[in-house]
Amino acid sequence: MSALPAIEQRSARIVMTVPFHDLDPAGIVWHGNYAKYFEIARCALLTQFNYNYDEMLVSGFLWPVIDLHVRYIKPLIFNQQVSVQATLREWEYRLAIDYLITDAASGARLTKGRTVQVAVNAATREMCLMSPPVLFERLKLAPDGN
Amino acid sequence: MSALPAIEQRSARIVMTVPFHDLDPAGIVWHGNYAKYFEIARCALLTQFNYNYDEMLVSGFLWPVIDLHVRYIKPLIFNQQVSVQATLREWEYRLAIDYLITDAASGARLTKGRTVQVAVNAATREMCLMSPPVLFERLKLAPDGN
Amino acid sequence: MSALPAIEQRSARIVMTVPFHDLDPAGIVWHGNYAKYFEIARCALLTQFNYNYDEMLVSGFLWPVIDLHVRYIKPLIFNQQVSVQATLREWEYRLAIDYLITDAASGARLTKGRTVQVAVNAATREMCLMSPPVLFERLKLAPDGN
Amino acid sequence: MSALPAIEQRSARIVMTVPFHDLDPAGIVWHGNYAKYFEIARCALLTQFNYNYDEMLVSGFLWPVIDLHVRYIKPLIFNQQVSVQATLREWEYRLAIDYLITDAASGARLTKGRTVQVAVNAATREMCLMSPPVLFERLKLAPDGN
Repeated sequence: MSALPAIEQRSARIVMTVPFHDLDPAGIVWHGNYAKYFEIARCALLTQFNYNYDEMLVSGFLWPVIDLHVRYIKPLIFNQQVSVQATLREWEYRLAIDYLITDAASGARLTKGRTVQVAVNAATREMCLMSPPVLFERLKLAPDGN
Repeated sequence: MSALPAIEQRSARIVMTVPFHDLDPAGIVWHGNYAKYFEIARCALLTQFNYNYDEMLVSGFLWPVIDLHVRYIKPLIFNQQVSVQATLREWEYRLAIDYLITDAASGARLTKGRTVQVAVNAATREMCLMSPPVLFERLKLAPDGN
Repeated sequence: MSALPAIEQRSARIVMTVPFHDLDPAGIVWHGNYAKYFEIARCALLTQFNYNYDEMLVSGFLWPVIDLHVRYIKPLIFNQQVSVQATLREWEYRLAIDYLITDAASGARLTKGRTVQVAVNAATREMCLMSPPVLFERLKLAPDGN
Repeated sequence: MSALPAIEQRSARIVMTVPFHDLDPAGIVWHGNYAKYFEIARCALLTQFNYNYDEMLVSGFLWPVIDLHVRYIKPLIFNQQVSVQATLREWEYRLAIDYLITDAASGARLTKGRTVQVAVNAATREMCLMSPPVLFERLKLAPDGN
């Protein structure tokens, strides 16, 4: 059994600039747009494991998001450089990933969040009660995290 | 003091058809788009109280969303008619609204969610520790809900 | 050969309310969002012909948009009721549809536009040089429009 | 009078990765999302001239898009690295910018487009018949392009 990956391997970070089209009339990012920022960081994390959305499909599984939580601490503004970090938290029965958005310059915490995904068999559209073996292979983890 | 409004006054419901541009490659609504559906129902609710986004601004307050939670039960598909209900839950210190999306034909529960907003003084951009009097006037409620 | 359908059959109109999440920092609809409004009207038009996106796929064809033009006359604002009309202009080699957005109350012209789509074989992903027979059947038109 | 800037100064190029949330059920970028990609390149171009959206507002002018044209040559797919180039074409009476999206690896041409913007006085909301002096200062151009 491979050992639990070091914490730095279970985390990915992207840096992005807040675009104009994500702003609302108050000149701050509209709250629904943060799900996009989380997703870009999540895809960077999944790519590290060779299990991004295209590879999920090839493996015969879809991984729909079944839960989203966003906690807005400070608003994001136009042209702000922000860092979005995604960290893997759970994988055995479902894929839980935590997010932290910080100001790239000051490091100030701006947003926290979490998504939960479950495996769905792409052919039958049935939900998996446990994450499929392919996830553990990609994570180089045993189902018990060892 | 005016009495607590009847439950039917604290709730609004809109019916909408799922548009093509909200779908993802799996042919279901991309999870980040639900925040838009919640907002349309929230605006219908706020309009009932004569306190929609334009009236908020006139009153001198912004009401940014500080927390969003979405629980995806069943996926929404193209052209599906869905009902989105928004129900006021808290108002004294913050505005908490619950959402329920159901299939308009069968009534099947598809999505649940909650948003929390707080008042921010539009001039000073300072957060209000308690909801401003204008909210209670519009809700026809005393701060203690009576 | 069936006759050219009357002009009212080749046109569909939807009425919608401008949502908050489509606004930009100037308090008007961000220009890229109009493609969504056109699409909702286009889907209403295609539904009249029993050839909406789900039926396109069943018929073995995708119809990607290959050209989009939008002419912004007056800005759309929050909560404005607007009418979006889609009118079929060409079908023999490609599907060209014109759009007109007007204020639902005053009838003032707000936006004009056009999309052009071509048929693509869903299996081979090859572009069709001429619209496939299924389109003419649904339009109840001969390829020469008679 | 300052001379016409060299062509390389009138052009900006950004490189981006196609995100999952911009895809449609056919697994390609939904056509309305290209306006976002154009905007990111346009903002890079305007930043070169110290006249991005925040500086526009400080200068007392809004620059709404009054015309958008997109010509889709080949579809953009998930995770594709694309280059988006924005090139200034007209400035005297209106700001016309051309766009070219290419595959970052192969250089294949994927999308072409153009936006046209006009200056609007932010205070009076009146459209300017000619671009205001601030634009020429920032472009280091005389109104006749010399």
